[in-house]
Amino acid sequence: MPLGHALDNRFAQLCGIEVPFSFDVKRALDINVRHGDFDFLFCPLMYTGYAPNKDKALTLNRQLLPYAGVNTGVTYGQWAGLVFAKISPTWLDLDSEDENVRVNAEAILKQQIEWASYLSVKHCVLPTPDGNSCANYAKCVNQILQGLKNMESAMKLLLRIPVGMSNDDYRPLSNALVDSWETWNSFRMLCDHHSQLVVALDIKRVLPPENSLKRWFGEPVTAAILDTEIFLTKARGNTLYLPKRHQKLIADLFHLDTRIVISEIKVPTSAQSAAGSKSQPLLAYWSQVSNIYKQRDPVSEQERSEFYTRDILQPSLRPSRNYSHAISYDDHEKDLVKYLHYEIAISRALLERVPDERASVIATVLVVVGAGRGRLVHASLKAAERTGRKLRVYAVEKNPQTVIALDELIRANNWDNTVSVVSSDVRDWSAPERADILVSDFLGSFGDNELSPESLDAAQRFLEKDGISIPSSYTSFLQPLTAPKLYQEAKARKDILHSESACLVNLHNVARLTPSQQVFTFSHPKCSDNQSNQRYQKLEFRIPTDTGSAMVHGFAGYFNATLYKSVLFGTEPSTMTPNLNTWLPMFFPLRTPICVHRGSILEVHFWRCVDSRKVWYEWCVTSPSSSPIHNCNGRSCWMDL
Amino acid sequence: MPLGHALDNRFAQLCGIEVPFSFDVKRALDINVRHGDFDFLFCPLMYTGYAPNKDKALTLNRQLLPYAGVNTGVTYGQWAGLVFAKISPTWLDLDSEDENVRVNAEAILKQQIEWASYLSVKHCVLPTPDGNSCANYAKCVNQILQGLKNMESAMKLLLRIPVGMSNDDYRPLSNALVDSWETWNSFRMLCDHHSQLVVALDIKRVLPPENSLKRWFGEPVTAAILDTEIFLTKARGNTLYLPKRHQKLIADLFHLDTRIVISEIKVPTSAQSAAGSKSQPLLAYWSQVSNIYKQRDPVSEQERSEFYTRDILQPSLRPSRNYSHAISYDDHEKDLVKYLHYEIAISRALLERVPDERASVIATVLVVVGAGRGRLVHASLKAAERTGRKLRVYAVEKNPQTVIALDELIRANNWDNTVSVVSSDVRDWSAPERADILVSDFLGSFGDNELSPESLDAAQRFLEKDGISIPSSYTSFLQPLTAPKLYQEAKARKDILHSESACLVNLHNVARLTPSQQVFTFSHPKCSDNQSNQRYQKLEFRIPTDTGSAMVHGFAGYFNATLYKSVLFGTEPSTMTPNLNTWLPMFFPLRTPICVHRGSILEVHFWRCVDSRKVWYEWCVTSPSSSPIHNCNGRSCWMDL
Repeated sequence: MPLGHALDNRFAQLCGIEVPFSFDVKRALDINVRHGDFDFLFCPLMYTGYAPNKDKALTLNRQLLPYAGVNTGVTYGQWAGLVFAKISPTWLDLDSEDENVRVNAEAILKQQIEWASYLSVKHCVLPTPDGNSCANYAKCVNQILQGLKNMESAMKLLLRIPVGMSNDDYRPLSNALVDSWETWNSFRMLCDHHSQLVVALDIKRVLPPENSLKRWFGEPVTAAILDTEIFLTKARGNTLYLPKRHQKLIADLFHLDTRIVISEIKVPTSAQSAAGSKSQPLLAYWSQVSNIYKQRDPVSEQERSEFYTRDILQPSLRPSRNYSHAISYDDHEKDLVKYLHYEIAISRALLERVPDERASVIATVLVVVGAGRGRLVHASLKAAERTGRKLRVYAVEKNPQTVIALDELIRANNWDNTVSVVSSDVRDWSAPERADILVSDFLGSFGDNELSPESLDAAQRFLEKDGISIPSSYTSFLQPLTAPKLYQEAKARKDILHSESACLVNLHNVARLTPSQQVFTFSHPKCSDNQSNQRYQKLEFRIPTDTGSAMVHGFAGYFNATLYKSVLFGTEPSTMTPNLNTWLPMFFPLRTPICVHRGSILEVHFWRCVDSRKVWYEWCVTSPSSSPIHNCNGRSCWMDL
Repeated sequence: MPLGHALDNRFAQLCGIEVPFSFDVKRALDINVRHGDFDFLFCPLMYTGYAPNKDKALTLNRQLLPYAGVNTGVTYGQWAGLVFAKISPTWLDLDSEDENVRVNAEAILKQQIEWASYLSVKHCVLPTPDGNSCANYAKCVNQILQGLKNMESAMKLLLRIPVGMSNDDYRPLSNALVDSWETWNSFRMLCDHHSQLVVALDIKRVLPPENSLKRWFGEPVTAAILDTEIFLTKARGNTLYLPKRHQKLIADLFHLDTRIVISEIKVPTSAQSAAGSKSQPLLAYWSQVSNIYKQRDPVSEQERSEFYTRDILQPSLRPSRNYSHAISYDDHEKDLVKYLHYEIAISRALLERVPDERASVIATVLVVVGAGRGRLVHASLKAAERTGRKLRVYAVEKNPQTVIALDELIRANNWDNTVSVVSSDVRDWSAPERADILVSDFLGSFGDNELSPESLDAAQRFLEKDGISIPSSYTSFLQPLTAPKLYQEAKARKDILHSESACLVNLHNVARLTPSQQVFTFSHPKCSDNQSNQRYQKLEFRIPTDTGSAMVHGFAGYFNATLYKSVLFGTEPSTMTPNLNTWLPMFFPLRTPICVHRGSILEVHFWRCVDSRKVWYEWCVTSPSSSPIHNCNGRSCWMDL
């Protein structure tokens, strides 16, 4: 039974239970899942209760190892959906100095994965690697991953990684300790960022600092194992509870669709130990997890609508010579917050420009540059009405398809006297009179990336000297991200184009490593005609020292805009305007992810380049090590002028 | 006139002279090259004698900049062959905080390259980058490089990099100083390892430590600029000379075909300064350089024959099911040293196996496994003759084409009574009697990489219990290399196969960063049949601290073999057998080069993997950072069983 009662199955969260080895998986499923509250089992599929003999090379007789699931009526679908295989035992030493131990361990590992694959099990949890020495383990896992056939394409290998420490004398990030995130990072790099290698977090009693923990929100955390030992008992009565930080961590993991596993560490005494006999007491733990789920905020409409676009790269730059399709206008026009901000900004500008006493005399000339289907015209007219100011509006639009809808809108509303529709590129239009106010909406997710500067430069020639541009300025922002999913997506395309193209992304499974920083600012109208729209900015991001080392796969791009004086909006996370849903963040990838070690600085360079035909960005990292300069001469992504 | 009198033009070395800006390049060429001893000019093509005004943004009127070569009769071929363009002035600040200075510098840089390109100049020497801040400079150079058209494909941009310091208080590798190699390395990474970005070393008076200097031997050092200030004067008389270390450096650079430039630093006082008027005094410097050239060892026959294979990747692994062509036998059989070693080893084995008094009675059974065209049969018979021992030889060869030649050899020499030819794969052959001695030659450049272990395992079943295998053991060695040329070659193929295939290479323009270390050893006969031919080895290379940081592009592979007891040969550099020319070194590339910082350890893992159908290597780096595991499951290179 999924935790809580989600209206929408996509947001249901599942909780499993660890059970010891049993030949009879069907019975364990019956007890715990069919008749119990759990959603799946986490269990070994092979009996490996033999203790390793340290004095002697391990020589298991492979034929005799007992397998689970040989003669039971568990269906393909049940193996696939209801069983997480625990690759055991945890003492498998694939990096032993002793060649025999190593070779046997390799054989046992491969055998178990093959057995799980034969049964159609989709999730195999691998033992925790030793951070100091796991190259041979990684080699074996890599061979398994690279050798996965199409049939097994849905199988995921979950590398079990501890988070925090079991005992209380844990000093976070002391130098003697191996940072378990680094172990995971190294293992995943050895396996060449394979998308089927994911993480099972083993949540310990003492958690590392918040920043260190945050790194996991960028990783593919497919399961989180909660040992019953991390649950505490209230002084009065014996009600179970989880420490606050653990509760928060689990709630955050729900957000990533991580499955929870309740586990009670008990070494099975024999292969015959009855599976599931311990399950009843674990229900109390289940309730705790279920409570955390129930306390979450309900899933918003926006979350629902964005579900399928999570972490998917979408091409970003719209060359201006391609006209948008109706569908994109439909989407953008839904953004009530955006147009309300425009209306307020225009209102303020009108009030300041025309004093009350002259309101009935002066008609303000307002040019909507890129009028689309008239939403900004409408906002302007509403502002005029709200302020009692007179307007003469020119609605300039170059997309001939949109002009049809624009014309229709104006006729239908009887705005003919106030609004003139101009079907022209703003660069070619000879304005019959100078404008007091320019209103435009060329802002992209990264501010200037839809050629707002160039479009407004063209419009400036018919703006009064003291005229106003709405927006009057905008600034782009960047933030380094851990985003292995996005990296894998780009890498799968195997070409340089996808590895250095800026994209739009609904960022979800990413870790934001530092606050964002300002990049480029443009103000309108410009002081001087000669002012170039080229820009160059060097940024230094300092990753908090309690984060530890971190992997940077690229940069999120945001913007903030000043429409008029104090009327602002934007997508920069620390100041973002709620419910402003026109813009997804940008993502500027790195061709090769860069590891930034604890305390070192990430130095990044961004350029906005302009030539006679196009505008593009280039970017690179110069510290802690130098990357290639991305998108040289705009070869992979650009905007046509 | 090329330095010295090389018999072979390929080995001629050229020495140029720096001259100040002049409109009349023809005259300068006449004085220095046509009527002088120099081979080419190094000169600015644009007058940039204006001093930069630090208080004011630099605003050059671009139309008015004077160019060299506008109206002179210098031909296309002369521009291409006899002129190195000096991109000037050196104070071009492409990373200025002042946007105007930066933008102007970019324009001046691009203008000069375009002018040089228009004239067909093939070498442009770029000003020295500032190690602390050169990202924007790199961006401009990268744009130029990536934008080079086919016509300009022969143009090289030489980044001028100082080596050492001019003054005497230079403390090598002190932390405050930027290591100029690191500046170069960072610049080249920013430019994505472009093959047309090369180095012009600016040799200073005080040279860095030997290990630090050595790194340059792996780099594309196309020119070395010798300021006249680094020449010293002998106490008595005024004979010029160069310090010993400088002499050695120049001799080593000759080996890399680096062109020398003699330069006298004088800031030109006006655009009209007569070019070349200073050339006569520089002849004394030329003589010094010429002397160094003349003192070199003469170019050996082997150097000549290997000239065209320098640093070229050649596929290495020969799947055993493909038979070699006659040409490869021709090459290998030329190796007199190799066969002499075999003859001596067989002689010793015969002497020890058969006491003098029984020499006429006992016939030793000797099986040549993989007899090829009979060179080892011949060596065996010579050993028998030399020691007065009797032999019964079986020459087993599976290549049916070679057997024809082998048969012919035996008939022609009347060896029919002693030698039986067996046309069979050794794995299929039923030996009529047990062998006392196995002689084989399956050694590859990396020892076991031509399946020697597997072939000798098959032969061991008909070897006497106390029988001898020649070779009796062999060990492979690895050594980390800086080898950007090899990296560029593999990268140019743009596929994973070439970036992780072991190759044979005549290593030339590479830096060997540490001594080599042992990897895998195989001994024959084996003690136990069950002993696997799989191997795993972890290696830790410690790059000397006075090297500074270094780039690792891959690993050279060598081998040493014990033929019999003290009869050894091999290619491992510190112990290599002179004139053993069958084997080129192996090269195991890294998909992405790894930068090892000063004092840190390079931890490498190598595997020899075996399955039922093939043998292959996998390798990875785990420190200072983790690489992917290369050649997983032998997907890119392997040997068929």
